[in-house]
Amino acid sequence: MAFFICSREWREKSDWYRYFAENVKGSKRKNRFPDIIEYRQQAIKDIQFANASFDLVVSSLALNYVADFAQVCHKIYACLTEKGQFIFSIECPVFTAHGSQDWCYDSSGAKLHWPVDNYFNESPRQAEFLGHKVTKYHKTLTTYLISLLTAGFSIARLIKAEPADYLLDKIDGMRDELPRPMMLLVLAEKT
Amino acid sequence: MAFFICSREWREKSDWYRYFAENVKGSKRKNRFPDIIEYRQQAIKDIQFANASFDLVVSSLALNYVADFAQVCHKIYACLTEKGQFIFSIECPVFTAHGSQDWCYDSSGAKLHWPVDNYFNESPRQAEFLGHKVTKYHKTLTTYLISLLTAGFSIARLIKAEPADYLLDKIDGMRDELPRPMMLLVLAEKT
Repeated sequence: MAFFICSREWREKSDWYRYFAENVKGSKRKNRFPDIIEYRQQAIKDIQFANASFDLVVSSLALNYVADFAQVCHKIYACLTEKGQFIFSIECPVFTAHGSQDWCYDSSGAKLHWPVDNYFNESPRQAEFLGHKVTKYHKTLTTYLISLLTAGFSIARLIKAEPADYLLDKIDGMRDELPRPMMLLVLAEKT
Repeated sequence: MAFFICSREWREKSDWYRYFAENVKGSKRKNRFPDIIEYRQQAIKDIQFANASFDLVVSSLALNYVADFAQVCHKIYACLTEKGQFIFSIECPVFTAHGSQDWCYDSSGAKLHWPVDNYFNESPRQAEFLGHKVTKYHKTLTTYLISLLTAGFSIARLIKAEPADYLLDKIDGMRDELPRPMMLLVLAEKT
């Protein structure tokens, strides 16, 4: 059994949220799979499941909105079965540290570089995201990884996502993903 | 038995290099422990030891000078005993990406932020270090961690070093270590 975490802001862009919205949630639509899919709308910090409920927990760009990542790690560890996997994507600390979520530009408006500042100041950052004003909690890489390890997870894979060559000229703005890392993807295992 | 790796540039600052220099290496000085300490001066990529020779491999700010980190991981994995540990510090990718190794300043000369650029361009960067011109090989966090995991290591601990509060006003320049991460410290285990 799997547990999927998605943020309120990102849900309109998320394939699986759209799937839920179309098949499960909508009051006008029928949940086609009521016996196997359950939808909950609640704060991530408040999730509560029986121990060993899931073989897989997947979170897509949701955990930047959580203040206490260590607490979430403990909860997810508990609700996973032995050898269960926790896979998540977050905006990486290099991306969230400065808070502006914007490049530095030269006087002609060309992108110069990505600014990093206040890296070790773990605190809320106000940002504009998909037309919403949102609060993200900047955390260091240390906090992400030590929280996972302390909860009992092993780090099976970790990458800062890099665009594939064939996408660079196919998707607008994809070349902007080369100068600085934006996404951190982690596969952690309950061992 | 332990194996310590230190760079040529850093050796004058390194406690253990000084120890070696004073006790082991110097032609004028006597190696006080010839039976238990051996000193070698060679490229890290050329190290060659019998399998399972060491319980511990420690590297201090040396692996930024290595082009092929994956090769080093395989060599170190092979020369470690079961449950052996590989502990290393490196200048972290956020620090090495741009290449200037310097801040962005405002017109009055005050530090604005740390620039990140060319993050996914893994290639040599020329830098000035302790009075020497040196070539460092910028690598992404992905490369460091996937190389370790692929070689067979588990990641036991990983931190981006943050200065302790009591050091901030005690050591000149220590407050500059708060806005951006400089050092990455990893403890990997042969499992």
